[in-house]
Amino acid sequence: MNVADMNWRDVEAAAAKDPRCILPIGSTEQHAQLSLCVDMILAEKVATDAAAPLGIPVFPVMPYGLAPYFNAYPGTICLRVETLMSVVRDIVASLRRSGFRQILIVNGHGGNNPVGALAQELLSEYGDISIKFHNWWNAPQTWAKIQETDPTGSHANWMENFPWTRLAHAAAPEGEKPGVDMVQMKVSPPAEVRNMLGDGSFGGRWQRPDDEMQAIWDIGVAETRAALEGPWAELKND
Amino acid sequence: MNVADMNWRDVEAAAAKDPRCILPIGSTEQHAQLSLCVDMILAEKVATDAAAPLGIPVFPVMPYGLAPYFNAYPGTICLRVETLMSVVRDIVASLRRSGFRQILIVNGHGGNNPVGALAQELLSEYGDISIKFHNWWNAPQTWAKIQETDPTGSHANWMENFPWTRLAHAAAPEGEKPGVDMVQMKVSPPAEVRNMLGDGSFGGRWQRPDDEMQAIWDIGVAETRAALEGPWAELKND
Amino acid sequence: MNVADMNWRDVEAAAAKDPRCILPIGSTEQHAQLSLCVDMILAEKVATDAAAPLGIPVFPVMPYGLAPYFNAYPGTICLRVETLMSVVRDIVASLRRSGFRQILIVNGHGGNNPVGALAQELLSEYGDISIKFHNWWNAPQTWAKIQETDPTGSHANWMENFPWTRLAHAAAPEGEKPGVDMVQMKVSPPAEVRNMLGDGSFGGRWQRPDDEMQAIWDIGVAETRAALEGPWAELKND
Amino acid sequence: MNVADMNWRDVEAAAAKDPRCILPIGSTEQHAQLSLCVDMILAEKVATDAAAPLGIPVFPVMPYGLAPYFNAYPGTICLRVETLMSVVRDIVASLRRSGFRQILIVNGHGGNNPVGALAQELLSEYGDISIKFHNWWNAPQTWAKIQETDPTGSHANWMENFPWTRLAHAAAPEGEKPGVDMVQMKVSPPAEVRNMLGDGSFGGRWQRPDDEMQAIWDIGVAETRAALEGPWAELKND
Amino acid sequence: MNVADMNWRDVEAAAAKDPRCILPIGSTEQHAQLSLCVDMILAEKVATDAAAPLGIPVFPVMPYGLAPYFNAYPGTICLRVETLMSVVRDIVASLRRSGFRQILIVNGHGGNNPVGALAQELLSEYGDISIKFHNWWNAPQTWAKIQETDPTGSHANWMENFPWTRLAHAAAPEGEKPGVDMVQMKVSPPAEVRNMLGDGSFGGRWQRPDDEMQAIWDIGVAETRAALEGPWAELKND
Amino acid sequence: MNVADMNWRDVEAAAAKDPRCILPIGSTEQHAQLSLCVDMILAEKVATDAAAPLGIPVFPVMPYGLAPYFNAYPGTICLRVETLMSVVRDIVASLRRSGFRQILIVNGHGGNNPVGALAQELLSEYGDISIKFHNWWNAPQTWAKIQETDPTGSHANWMENFPWTRLAHAAAPEGEKPGVDMVQMKVSPPAEVRNMLGDGSFGGRWQRPDDEMQAIWDIGVAETRAALEGPWAELKND
Repeated sequence: MNVADMNWRDVEAAAAKDPRCILPIGSTEQHAQLSLCVDMILAEKVATDAAAPLGIPVFPVMPYGLAPYFNAYPGTICLRVETLMSVVRDIVASLRRSGFRQILIVNGHGGNNPVGALAQELLSEYGDISIKFHNWWNAPQTWAKIQETDPTGSHANWMENFPWTRLAHAAAPEGEKPGVDMVQMKVSPPAEVRNMLGDGSFGGRWQRPDDEMQAIWDIGVAETRAALEGPWAELKND
Repeated sequence: MNVADMNWRDVEAAAAKDPRCILPIGSTEQHAQLSLCVDMILAEKVATDAAAPLGIPVFPVMPYGLAPYFNAYPGTICLRVETLMSVVRDIVASLRRSGFRQILIVNGHGGNNPVGALAQELLSEYGDISIKFHNWWNAPQTWAKIQETDPTGSHANWMENFPWTRLAHAAAPEGEKPGVDMVQMKVSPPAEVRNMLGDGSFGGRWQRPDDEMQAIWDIGVAETRAALEGPWAELKND
Repeated sequence: MNVADMNWRDVEAAAAKDPRCILPIGSTEQHAQLSLCVDMILAEKVATDAAAPLGIPVFPVMPYGLAPYFNAYPGTICLRVETLMSVVRDIVASLRRSGFRQILIVNGHGGNNPVGALAQELLSEYGDISIKFHNWWNAPQTWAKIQETDPTGSHANWMENFPWTRLAHAAAPEGEKPGVDMVQMKVSPPAEVRNMLGDGSFGGRWQRPDDEMQAIWDIGVAETRAALEGPWAELKND
Repeated sequence: MNVADMNWRDVEAAAAKDPRCILPIGSTEQHAQLSLCVDMILAEKVATDAAAPLGIPVFPVMPYGLAPYFNAYPGTICLRVETLMSVVRDIVASLRRSGFRQILIVNGHGGNNPVGALAQELLSEYGDISIKFHNWWNAPQTWAKIQETDPTGSHANWMENFPWTRLAHAAAPEGEKPGVDMVQMKVSPPAEVRNMLGDGSFGGRWQRPDDEMQAIWDIGVAETRAALEGPWAELKND
Repeated sequence: MNVADMNWRDVEAAAAKDPRCILPIGSTEQHAQLSLCVDMILAEKVATDAAAPLGIPVFPVMPYGLAPYFNAYPGTICLRVETLMSVVRDIVASLRRSGFRQILIVNGHGGNNPVGALAQELLSEYGDISIKFHNWWNAPQTWAKIQETDPTGSHANWMENFPWTRLAHAAAPEGEKPGVDMVQMKVSPPAEVRNMLGDGSFGGRWQRPDDEMQAIWDIGVAETRAALEGPWAELKND
Repeated sequence: MNVADMNWRDVEAAAAKDPRCILPIGSTEQHAQLSLCVDMILAEKVATDAAAPLGIPVFPVMPYGLAPYFNAYPGTICLRVETLMSVVRDIVASLRRSGFRQILIVNGHGGNNPVGALAQELLSEYGDISIKFHNWWNAPQTWAKIQETDPTGSHANWMENFPWTRLAHAAAPEGEKPGVDMVQMKVSPPAEVRNMLGDGSFGGRWQRPDDEMQAIWDIGVAETRAALEGPWAELKND
């Protein structure tokens, strides 16, 4: 249940009944012809769909993350690592203060991985909460399904092209784009990354049939829901 | 135009044509029986409505802000001042990198006022951009309309009760709540604030007729649009 | 009583007898022909005058604050927001360690307003102290008196021209300066601010008769003293 | 060539001749019966062995990293994420100031992965350097060799048990340890991690024959050397 | 000349004529029966007296510094190291922006020594300014005079007891206090420091004749003036 | 005993038996013809030699410190003051968590002195540990021996030229270098420092006979061992 549809009494009641909540985190960054907000859209939607039958609160998605490699593409917003750490640190403190003890961070952007390291640090700092950092798209079953569908699945190509991330005014290119040299790209400054990537997709097809995408989505939702169900830390003061 | 409906080429084109963009910032915090997300909903909607006829990009609303006084109400998320400063610092750097030179920050939450001080700091740091910090609800004309409608307008009472911030399952209480002692509240820690505030409204009526709210909204949108139109700094390299 | 006139045993005795103390904060920045230190002089003096009959300790004024808009005027010292936050955070921790539980921050500079937001954060962090952030010059009664005296009262004009902020070698200009466009100024970088402001006053007369100033001062002192007297938070462990 | 064996003229000459250098980073943390310094020993040695024939300077290994999950094991030193970011930020600035433009960070500890994100940020900040973040043990060929040798290879088990990480006084246990539930462990605070892990190994055998280890090592060295050889960013000012 | 007696045009003229200015830094901390503000009083006064004949601006003394060892004595204000670094970093940036290129930091408190390290860092960061960190009381000649007068000279004893640091209501004790074990004190937490120090003096006599103090002061002023006179860095852009 | 030769059970046993441990800190910076790592080599070796007969754990030396004045010499790595503070803060927290209560920081580099100030801050923050900051080379007896040997002893000259800091390929120059003007150097930016210092030594002879160096070393080791032996704070909870 989205927290936008809850008031504080609803959250108080939810936390009293169930120690779990979800924090989705995304990014606003180039995604070729797709929406700049792909990663926040997917993180929030997969979290919402997963939580729905369980009645677990989904907090508003953090729309900004770490995307320095795309800094030469207008519309890309990039936080420093320390900034995102501070944001998540403060949100987790607030969730714990609200009464939650099992926090699922649903991440929609590979660049945000340092949040996983921070989650470990917070486990040590508090000692009485459990945090699970969940990259929804490369969790084992979802990733397997993506690979099975088309092994080129990657940033801004068909893998992120869902009906809810497409823009009506910007059709996907036809055909297939050659893969980029990932090693070269990773050691290059943003201007060079843009030279290498052109439109921004990492290669392969830009779009695949909707039924294939729905099949991937269904697994992604189910696997995120499974992450909610456990395992969680056995906490002394629970 | 919401950036979620744009890709990077759209933003590149927008910035080439017009130096203006909008960053809405909100808060997730207790709002009595209303949505915990009132401030982010209103900031994003007023920005979107204001920008629509001008075709100016509206970036995703920052959903979390400074709300320590409500820390005893579950569902309240509170960033430290330094954290919010870092977030806005990084976003402004990214907007400038994207080509924008006139940035309207549309703020939906009084507690976020330090962002106004940071905006001044960034004007000095860069020297080539103009930033306007706009508290939409207490800009002169909007505030005058609110006062004229009902001088009790304040946090979580009728003033924030719009059709788009209400929850279907949580009707507004009837009647009128006595005003809280604001001076006493401001010097009190969160537990005491909750004791004083009870349901969370600052007093007065919890709801007013929709046509009155629409009239306020129309002025808020118009005044935010006027803020977009100027004045802006005269910049050497524009 | 100024802490400069106290030793540690005096402070220990004061804190044992009365939970209140004062921290004045100012700024060093252009004030037209007046002293660069107007804001620290006024904050410290109003605090001292207010506290005198009550025997409450007044700590040394923090002489530096947030003044980025005046960065093109030599002699202006500007801290970053985060720096001032850190300073006040550490001082409040020290005052609490010294035994004080009711801390009046007497602020002499509008640009320092983020300290008010920090005060709220510290109330939440500690839970056992009460902090009041008091802008002495625009507290309700003082501001009313200023408006009644001359509605142009603002930065570096007559409103800040007291016998104790004037410089013998720099007489106030005669006549009246047209008001500055405040909206334009607030969105402009420092070089443009200096272009707009010229000598630095925000407009109106540069000086008014001393008896008028004394009348304002008397109200400012009385209102600051009233702030010391209450209300304060009701704290559990007091 | 280790920088400990160089003076400043040697480094000046090296940077003038070749833009490459190496920064190894490790960790000091529990490794079952093995040395607490396994990760720093391996990172420094693999870097040194790889660089030797190329005459590329290897700076001193950073001995401390991110290891919060092992905080319940004495001898574990854990930096906060922000601390390690600051360290690497400053070192990279210094390496660039020394004349290097291609920096290979050889990482010996999975928990340090946020340094990879920081490397991307620094690429954007400077624009004129290339940084490669290299997890030596799970680079493709090395990891394939490990998997081929024994798919249990993991923290503190045989995979990290080299003649140069063993302690003479602490023989490896015999037999094979059941694998730990990694998902459960990742969401648990340190005390619970210690309960789950016992001696600290992640399971499997504690030691394998030296010739197998040497074969893995040889591939690790070769792959690290290959990383030195390219690809690197094409930089404008090179 | 104190900056409190200058307006911005005065500072602009001063910086145009002479690249030098002074920033005094002090501390507010226990000084036995003396004023809590001894270190700020002495730093500001020695700076003012030294600068007077040269017409060099003396900025307001920073009243708070690093004094954690005295945290068990009420009235002691202690900044964290990072906080003081931030303050001095921002002030130096402002002084440089104001046109000064030779900055004398006159320090009145031994605990502030990390500012000397920061000054070195700022020399490297800017490259076009010169900063001199001057501990007025232990500069060579002043320290020699103190030793010659009475080798016990130390914190809060006669060495800091000047007519301008004494309190009328708190006479110095008679007699001589045994020296404290400095090594033991330096490794002890504040509560233990207070146990060891009692009244707060480091031992020896609490007061000496005024003519002796004046003789020390005269040398302190002269040596601070000499520090103003040189040497300074030879800067390219001067 | 070096921690590299210990596993976590060894450290757990050590901390249970004896509250003491050592953290050596060094620097990587120009040392004329000597190794860039002189300061880390000496800090770690003197710590190891001192601890050996006592069986006290010596943690890995922190190889990087504060050396901004040498930034114009390639190979010099310079951390910001705040960075080194963060590192030591986190390490001390980890040592305390490991069970140690008496921590000897053996420092090999004068520029790292702010760590001494931080140690005081940590004593106050924790209240239950004792930290001793030990500059091994200028502890009273060692410094006396150096002065007796040759009063020119200083950075990068004979005083740091031990058999274990020399490089086989870079013989010490013959003769004696005139002393540098230390006051001038301290106020100069790095480029000017390099102009003044040339090869990097602070003057005097570059090398002295090995037996003289061994005699100094023996005293340095003995004095470091004495520092381990006491005094330490008397802690309530020991």
